Amino acid sequence: MSNTLGTLLKITSFGESHGAAVGVVLDGCPAGLELNTEFIQSELLRRRPGQSKITTARNEKEEFEIISGIFEGKTTGAPITIIIPNNDTRSKDYDHLAGVYRPSHADYTYQEKYGHRDHHGGGRSSARITAGWVAAGAIAKQLLSKSGIKVQAFVSQAGNVVLSKPYKALDLAKTENNIVRCPDEETANQMIELITEVKKQGDTIGGVITGVISHVPVGLGEPVFDKLHATLGHSMLSINAVKGVEFGSGFEGVKMRGSEHNDAFVPGEKIRTKTNYSGGVQGGISNGEDIVFRVAFKPVATIMKDQDTVDSSGKATTVMGKGRHDPCVVPRAVPIVEAMAAIVLADFVLRARTTKLDV
Amino acid sequence: MSNTLGTLLKITSFGESHGAAVGVVLDGCPAGLELNTEFIQSELLRRRPGQSKITTARNEKEEFEIISGIFEGKTTGAPITIIIPNNDTRSKDYDHLAGVYRPSHADYTYQEKYGHRDHHGGGRSSARITAGWVAAGAIAKQLLSKSGIKVQAFVSQAGNVVLSKPYKALDLAKTENNIVRCPDEETANQMIELITEVKKQGDTIGGVITGVISHVPVGLGEPVFDKLHATLGHSMLSINAVKGVEFGSGFEGVKMRGSEHNDAFVPGEKIRTKTNYSGGVQGGISNGEDIVFRVAFKPVATIMKDQDTVDSSGKATTVMGKGRHDPCVVPRAVPIVEAMAAIVLADFVLRARTTKLDV
Amino acid sequence: MSNTLGTLLKITSFGESHGAAVGVVLDGCPAGLELNTEFIQSELLRRRPGQSKITTARNEKEEFEIISGIFEGKTTGAPITIIIPNNDTRSKDYDHLAGVYRPSHADYTYQEKYGHRDHHGGGRSSARITAGWVAAGAIAKQLLSKSGIKVQAFVSQAGNVVLSKPYKALDLAKTENNIVRCPDEETANQMIELITEVKKQGDTIGGVITGVISHVPVGLGEPVFDKLHATLGHSMLSINAVKGVEFGSGFEGVKMRGSEHNDAFVPGEKIRTKTNYSGGVQGGISNGEDIVFRVAFKPVATIMKDQDTVDSSGKATTVMGKGRHDPCVVPRAVPIVEAMAAIVLADFVLRARTTKLDV
Amino acid sequence: MSNTLGTLLKITSFGESHGAAVGVVLDGCPAGLELNTEFIQSELLRRRPGQSKITTARNEKEEFEIISGIFEGKTTGAPITIIIPNNDTRSKDYDHLAGVYRPSHADYTYQEKYGHRDHHGGGRSSARITAGWVAAGAIAKQLLSKSGIKVQAFVSQAGNVVLSKPYKALDLAKTENNIVRCPDEETANQMIELITEVKKQGDTIGGVITGVISHVPVGLGEPVFDKLHATLGHSMLSINAVKGVEFGSGFEGVKMRGSEHNDAFVPGEKIRTKTNYSGGVQGGISNGEDIVFRVAFKPVATIMKDQDTVDSSGKATTVMGKGRHDPCVVPRAVPIVEAMAAIVLADFVLRARTTKLDV
Repeated sequence: MSNTLGTLLKITSFGESHGAAVGVVLDGCPAGLELNTEFIQSELLRRRPGQSKITTARNEKEEFEIISGIFEGKTTGAPITIIIPNNDTRSKDYDHLAGVYRPSHADYTYQEKYGHRDHHGGGRSSARITAGWVAAGAIAKQLLSKSGIKVQAFVSQAGNVVLSKPYKALDLAKTENNIVRCPDEETANQMIELITEVKKQGDTIGGVITGVISHVPVGLGEPVFDKLHATLGHSMLSINAVKGVEFGSGFEGVKMRGSEHNDAFVPGEKIRTKTNYSGGVQGGISNGEDIVFRVAFKPVATIMKDQDTVDSSGKATTVMGKGRHDPCVVPRAVPIVEAMAAIVLADFVLRARTTKLDV
Repeated sequence: MSNTLGTLLKITSFGESHGAAVGVVLDGCPAGLELNTEFIQSELLRRRPGQSKITTARNEKEEFEIISGIFEGKTTGAPITIIIPNNDTRSKDYDHLAGVYRPSHADYTYQEKYGHRDHHGGGRSSARITAGWVAAGAIAKQLLSKSGIKVQAFVSQAGNVVLSKPYKALDLAKTENNIVRCPDEETANQMIELITEVKKQGDTIGGVITGVISHVPVGLGEPVFDKLHATLGHSMLSINAVKGVEFGSGFEGVKMRGSEHNDAFVPGEKIRTKTNYSGGVQGGISNGEDIVFRVAFKPVATIMKDQDTVDSSGKATTVMGKGRHDPCVVPRAVPIVEAMAAIVLADFVLRARTTKLDV
Repeated sequence: MSNTLGTLLKITSFGESHGAAVGVVLDGCPAGLELNTEFIQSELLRRRPGQSKITTARNEKEEFEIISGIFEGKTTGAPITIIIPNNDTRSKDYDHLAGVYRPSHADYTYQEKYGHRDHHGGGRSSARITAGWVAAGAIAKQLLSKSGIKVQAFVSQAGNVVLSKPYKALDLAKTENNIVRCPDEETANQMIELITEVKKQGDTIGGVITGVISHVPVGLGEPVFDKLHATLGHSMLSINAVKGVEFGSGFEGVKMRGSEHNDAFVPGEKIRTKTNYSGGVQGGISNGEDIVFRVAFKPVATIMKDQDTVDSSGKATTVMGKGRHDPCVVPRAVPIVEAMAAIVLADFVLRARTTKLDV
Repeated sequence: MSNTLGTLLKITSFGESHGAAVGVVLDGCPAGLELNTEFIQSELLRRRPGQSKITTARNEKEEFEIISGIFEGKTTGAPITIIIPNNDTRSKDYDHLAGVYRPSHADYTYQEKYGHRDHHGGGRSSARITAGWVAAGAIAKQLLSKSGIKVQAFVSQAGNVVLSKPYKALDLAKTENNIVRCPDEETANQMIELITEVKKQGDTIGGVITGVISHVPVGLGEPVFDKLHATLGHSMLSINAVKGVEFGSGFEGVKMRGSEHNDAFVPGEKIRTKTNYSGGVQGGISNGEDIVFRVAFKPVATIMKDQDTVDSSGKATTVMGKGRHDPCVVPRAVPIVEAMAAIVLADFVLRARTTKLDV
């Protein structure tokens, strides 16, 4: 396994869904950052299960403890360790899964790869572990705010309900106004309706989250293998259930002509571009425009329906539809997307300090 | 900059478009691999500029030299260094660009980040440097063939010409039968027609490449941060002009219900899945099905039309349409996609040797 | 800061002397290892403060908790997190040190580098944090035992009392027979006498620990930058108070002639060497002989005597001799040396699985 | 194999003794450094074989070519690749060694580990490859000079001839005045005499090199695993034939009392220490005093005498004394020690830019 991400600012993730706790070690955070721990708590609550009628019923308070790296309220440069205990675990709900492989879950691949796995609640493969990432992201966001950089995300698609307005036409401050985290009220309502319907059917659907990083200085990203979007994409694809990521014009841009797609430079106090099909990244380096990306999440694999599958001996069997789960993962994944984006960006901010001869 | 990729099998990339040479150091290749150097040559020729009427006219023979790591035709475990000289450089073609920022190129971001850049032919940001990656990929492919793993890619979209047949209905061996590298002859002809037309207009278009990795053992991938698709995605997004990547059902799968999307396990001598919406990866680990992914390339930024832009002092100016370039990058990018996929997969094959207590 | 060590088997260290806890995340441990947790406890007790009259009086029970990575008593391949709470902290003992720099401690360098430090008990710079390393080392030792590799260390010098017998003439099983961890009873008694005397004087002395790794397979080590002894040396120099490390003949070997120093190969079922001036490593790779090394520890910097120094404003002041400390660090450092050696060796054992084409 | 060293400033080493060339890729060098290539040449000549009567007769001009990363005389931030062709190779001299293991060389360990090796001149295990390191070090030195940091080394022991004066009593500028690179003329002459005598006998001896890094800012080093001396020590132990490294008081300091050994802080415009037993490093971080270290080199393994050994089938045989070699490696190793120290220090200078919240 490989549970450390980053070059200078690094997170090491640990924990299982139904173990004692999940958590994270954040290493490389500069010293002297006055830490707002209430913000960490509020970010964790955004990711919290049981937060609304369209999320899983698992009820975690998401209380956390910082056990290292902070002194008198400020970071010391030492590794920051955050522990988030697992409280509302119902391991017995998973006893019937010890020898059965749930379709499109990681049961089979973990069993085959490691030969020995914790099957309770998905064990290490559970999205529960992203609680630690969100906690680390809450610190990264505080770091970024010192450079004025802002990371925001919102739900732009749930199933076939698509938010078609361009993000510039939206007020992203409204994202938290509804339980689906879509800043357009009308679309949000359609999404909630759809998710509620799907939930009733015991089924699930996928969704898309759009990320927008604004007030980005020119020059973040480390070509040719740690290009800004490549590393950001890596972090997005690390999130459970993500099947795709695109930047700027993405897959749609393929159809355009170069003459349309090219982002003409516009003179001014600061050089800007007229359009932003590049999504804020050119040659793997931020150009000062908003970094815009979209992340595709597959339908949640746990459904309330019986499914045909095989057991660990390879025999046909049925996995029963039970347990607690989300009918659609994207509302709770918004803070995860933001957290991963913030961690990656903060690492690049630090790395960018070493690009030129003189600081 | 960060020019090394991989954990055990690592490539370090170097060189500029109009420098003496481009190249690569491949470290961590197991000892004892009988190297087929003709295969390296043939792979380089697939990426070669000037290979057809729909590619750039730059004429490189892509002769290469292996200056370390091989003894009596076999790898020794030592780093393998491959040098590919730049011969057909016309640096003067770029003199007018020293102080001008080409739209949607990396001129501006490199200048701002580094304060000093080689503007000839894009310098370090040129796709010329992927020649080294293709050479390393040709070795990785030979490594993978020892495990029976096969990496293939083909053009599945050029502009709005889409290859709609599922890849299973195609004969991928036909990919090399035409200059656009689309295995379906009819679609290939449409693509060639479109690219030819676009080229006449002095314009460019984007495209999509589909990758298929077959005969993959179960168990490749290192969660939670080096998941197979996350690392593969990282490598794809490192390729010049790539704006998006998706696995299995990708962005389309978002609209599906979990009950449709889940890949039911099917009993048998080897456990298989009925469908493959997962794209061969579950929980970040290969499940033995084909790994299927799609990579979006934006329209080539260099066009044969004058464009409004700014110069390095921030004043408005015009960049003239001249130079040699591809009207559509995907035909030549097919071997690059395959190379990066092969390098990543081979690294995972080595890493997978250390997962369990006993080899 | 950089708190992660290793390539495949990695430890991430966290915690401060007087914080809530110290601990470690061990990532990359192969799945399926039946873990003996009592052994972890016994190793921690070997490092425990307050274990004898010649160690510090700080009294930690060294109770630990494994909060991730283990399921039904066996490793799962997931990161293993071990927490060791700090119980017997007397932070008030350190209040007078907030603005004073203790000579030859890390107070000044941490303050200057980070601008903000936890001054209680040395904070992050305290040897207390090696408790986590010892816990991880106890797991690494269990891994190594599967390959038959044995890691042992003992005190070979305390101040000017030198154990002059070659290690082959000693019974290393006797190392734990006395409180100074020297396997030769007579020398041990001299060492204890010296340390007791030095303690009475409120002073401290240094010492040397010899490490012996036996039953090592040929082929461990990754030239040219992760040579076995270079990486092992790195880990030794990471231990608090270490000022030097040498392998085989070390500094003494400098005076020898090549004709004496060369280790002649001897035929046999297994190729062996007649002598072992190389210390078991040739060209950075184990040759199958015992890996032998010596680690020099400086005298403990905390003394029970007043010392001239400066305060954080740069003014002359006196630091008073008080607090709890070891008069000589080597008896308690023996398990730390063994732990770091075991972690490094286990990483190399895993890496060696990827050297050749076939496993 | 693992041929990359460093975190932000990284070198990747490649090449074999009798291959086409040896070389290095230096990645992460800040952009805008005006490169003095004559200095690179002069450093290479200091390491050059055949430079005096007490070195090997192999005659390399050490001409080098920079094939990437430099534009108009300045670094661009892109990887800098330096190639140093092998010209004076006499591979036939090594034909008799294909199946024989030279004692205390890496023949046996490479053969066993990799199963396939280049036996000419030691192949990858040859000190020839340090030419690339010296070239990279010459760039690192130029980087360091921007921060005022100076790296110097000299021979302080050859066999039993010891330079007993403290380095402060020496004029290090005189190091290059004699062929043995000892700044004390009288001792230098004794060393030369000894080496000449040993050479006549067809034998070899070892030596010690002392390194002094001066004008070091406070705050370099990244605890707890990339402590300044641990990482520096790692790089020293990576140099061929090195068997030990010590910092400050090193192994001798073990005998001292804490009350003597502690470096009292002295008030002043800049805080200094009265003594420097710490060798300029406290808690793994530079304290502003000179960083002082000693590196032990074993006697050269190649001797002009027949030696008993075994062949690759395990049978007893004799390896004949022939070939070209150094009777004592330290005179030519002085620039290598400086180069590795410079590379490590420059990396730490870059990393230190990211320690605090504000640059």
